[in-house]
Amino acid sequence: MPVNLAAPDPASLLSVPGVELGVACAGIKKPGRKDVLVMRLAQGSEAVGVFTQNRFCAAPVMVCKAHLSSDDGIRALLVNTGNANAGTGEDGLDRARATCAALAGRLGLKPAQILPFSTGVILEPLPHDKIMAALPAAIADLKPTNWAAAAEAIMTTDIVAKATSRKVALNGQDFAVTGIAKGSGMIHPNMATMLSYVATDAPVAREALDVILRYAVNRSFNCITVDGDTSTNDSCILIATGVTQAPTIMNDGDPRFGALRDAVTEVMIQLAQAIVRDGEGATKFITVRVEGGRDPAECKQIAYAVAHSPLVKTAFFASDPNLGRILAAVGYAGVADLDVDRVKLWLGGVLVAENGGRSPGYREAEGQRVMAAPEIEVRIHLGRGDTVATVWTCDLSYDYVKINAEYRT
Amino acid sequence: MPVNLAAPDPASLLSVPGVELGVACAGIKKPGRKDVLVMRLAQGSEAVGVFTQNRFCAAPVMVCKAHLSSDDGIRALLVNTGNANAGTGEDGLDRARATCAALAGRLGLKPAQILPFSTGVILEPLPHDKIMAALPAAIADLKPTNWAAAAEAIMTTDIVAKATSRKVALNGQDFAVTGIAKGSGMIHPNMATMLSYVATDAPVAREALDVILRYAVNRSFNCITVDGDTSTNDSCILIATGVTQAPTIMNDGDPRFGALRDAVTEVMIQLAQAIVRDGEGATKFITVRVEGGRDPAECKQIAYAVAHSPLVKTAFFASDPNLGRILAAVGYAGVADLDVDRVKLWLGGVLVAENGGRSPGYREAEGQRVMAAPEIEVRIHLGRGDTVATVWTCDLSYDYVKINAEYRT
Repeated sequence: MPVNLAAPDPASLLSVPGVELGVACAGIKKPGRKDVLVMRLAQGSEAVGVFTQNRFCAAPVMVCKAHLSSDDGIRALLVNTGNANAGTGEDGLDRARATCAALAGRLGLKPAQILPFSTGVILEPLPHDKIMAALPAAIADLKPTNWAAAAEAIMTTDIVAKATSRKVALNGQDFAVTGIAKGSGMIHPNMATMLSYVATDAPVAREALDVILRYAVNRSFNCITVDGDTSTNDSCILIATGVTQAPTIMNDGDPRFGALRDAVTEVMIQLAQAIVRDGEGATKFITVRVEGGRDPAECKQIAYAVAHSPLVKTAFFASDPNLGRILAAVGYAGVADLDVDRVKLWLGGVLVAENGGRSPGYREAEGQRVMAAPEIEVRIHLGRGDTVATVWTCDLSYDYVKINAEYRT
Repeated sequence: MPVNLAAPDPASLLSVPGVELGVACAGIKKPGRKDVLVMRLAQGSEAVGVFTQNRFCAAPVMVCKAHLSSDDGIRALLVNTGNANAGTGEDGLDRARATCAALAGRLGLKPAQILPFSTGVILEPLPHDKIMAALPAAIADLKPTNWAAAAEAIMTTDIVAKATSRKVALNGQDFAVTGIAKGSGMIHPNMATMLSYVATDAPVAREALDVILRYAVNRSFNCITVDGDTSTNDSCILIATGVTQAPTIMNDGDPRFGALRDAVTEVMIQLAQAIVRDGEGATKFITVRVEGGRDPAECKQIAYAVAHSPLVKTAFFASDPNLGRILAAVGYAGVADLDVDRVKLWLGGVLVAENGGRSPGYREAEGQRVMAAPEIEVRIHLGRGDTVATVWTCDLSYDYVKINAEYRT
């Protein structure tokens, strides 16, 4: 059961001038399920991406990187679910390229103007013929108002579709920022996330767009974990169609840059948190905030140690304030000179531990009250500096095991 | 259900001349359960230890380190289960020292000649009065044949007691090596394990004993993981009573050194594997062997990434050869320049992946057959060197979640 997460109201999603979306059923995994998405972008659009750092990165990730580095200009995205086209070697690359060529042919584009994406089972051949057969239906469905349908079409083990919009006024002119994402398991993005596509009609030069993407990803998708497994297919794409008369934002010296960057970041944080809220088997949404570190890296290292601990996660599932498990995770996170006598731990607003042990004022009933809520904040102060990092995660439940034990059945 | 692990036959456990063991009920967690162990060592015994690297190390670990560095000579060990005396600050140190003083008084020893150990819930005050009240019964129970009872008394979530013996002939004279261990969850030892005590009556100088301990631990307890959580209380103690007329083994130049070292290592490997076989919720025993690395550290890093992956572990639980998850874990293990086209993956003897994708000869039915067995070997060849590392782990089942969600109830 997703934690405080409802499917997006389609009426709340702003169309982005210059972006059309179409979905179709290719029958890759289940018949009758929409599993192919085509996004068509207006001529002149800019697209930038970040991708998984997994050495076994999927074939479509390699093709995306090659196409993004060409100068032809990205004009369409093609996404399939049900098969990740990862761990598929040369043959996987050939199949990914074949789908690009087929879509390019139907849209009058070059293959290098297409970005391909796949998500699903690893180590199995991509049924590229099924995807190619579904292209006419997806193209016939292309329209600017299809964001909610697109968010649904890219789901795998997701229970709820993930999409959100912001309107941002730049120099008095309104622009849209709309994004979708999918992801529920194999979630520990490293410089990217499962799959996310965010678009704006603001006019932004490629280099400036890339700065905005990296800024936003580092504050959103790179701050979440469900199970600590970094996917082979993580991809996050930011698009600026620039369908407007307004002048192009060239760099951060433009007074409009900050507002657009913040709107993109807000959209990505909401999508990233939605992935955690819909984490496989999740019953709790947990914010781990580590303060008082010497640098942000050590704060994040400790936050991830807490967020990855199966013992901490099962205690949250049980609503059991077994908080020694959090201290144990802080202790083994790998900060070698950490002085545990300076560490403070709060659960919600309740001070639990200080001076190397339980706080004298702590009462189990207060911990119990905080643990029973569906949203919980763990706050840790290291007492050795003034930097901060936040990580969002979920609990570990029977259903996580069930979902992943039965994934291919 | 432990995987191919039966409780030790008490008759199979060799007494170690110079070691007596006694157990008693202190009623720390459950009434009527043996939860206190005293081990008395003959005068002149040598003891060496390795302990958790967790920064939140428990009070008894700190006291052990202090007492091992004194010159009085260790003469007794005192172990309680049900409470870890970790995350307990100065008060926890006082309570650990009080139990040492009480046992020393009753045995006519100095407090610094006692090593204290605790295992159980973190962040709760040690009921040291209960432990002290149980000492007379434990002392009355002291006898050399009590190894099996001792192994039972130190269990927490363990289902099966863990103990084993080897007879080793050194220069024609037989000596015993007998060890016990406990551990089932919060298992990812880092330079030590949960709790293990191994003793021999061979005569060994302290420095040589320390070399043997570190050699054996690095090939046993430091090669296992259940859940990736490094405990606050990990302790492994190796004792040599030297109750013999034979001359003392001073260093590795002694021709007896190698045989003794290998016997200790065998005992520790069997105990470490027993911890994994009895891992919380375990239904499978999995060996992850990584070969062809540039150095042992990168082999171990990749082996642990595979062994920690919740997705890999749930696939083993389901007997599902969803082997792409193993490749994904290899890919995100953090070996930045890994060439995935050179990686080979075998399940049992079956070649699954090569050249960046599925092996042409691989058939799912063969993977299925291997996965159905209770003992599974994953073998990965990195194709970039000739070093090797092995890690032992178990699967992730519903029962792991159940055990840890209900741990304190």
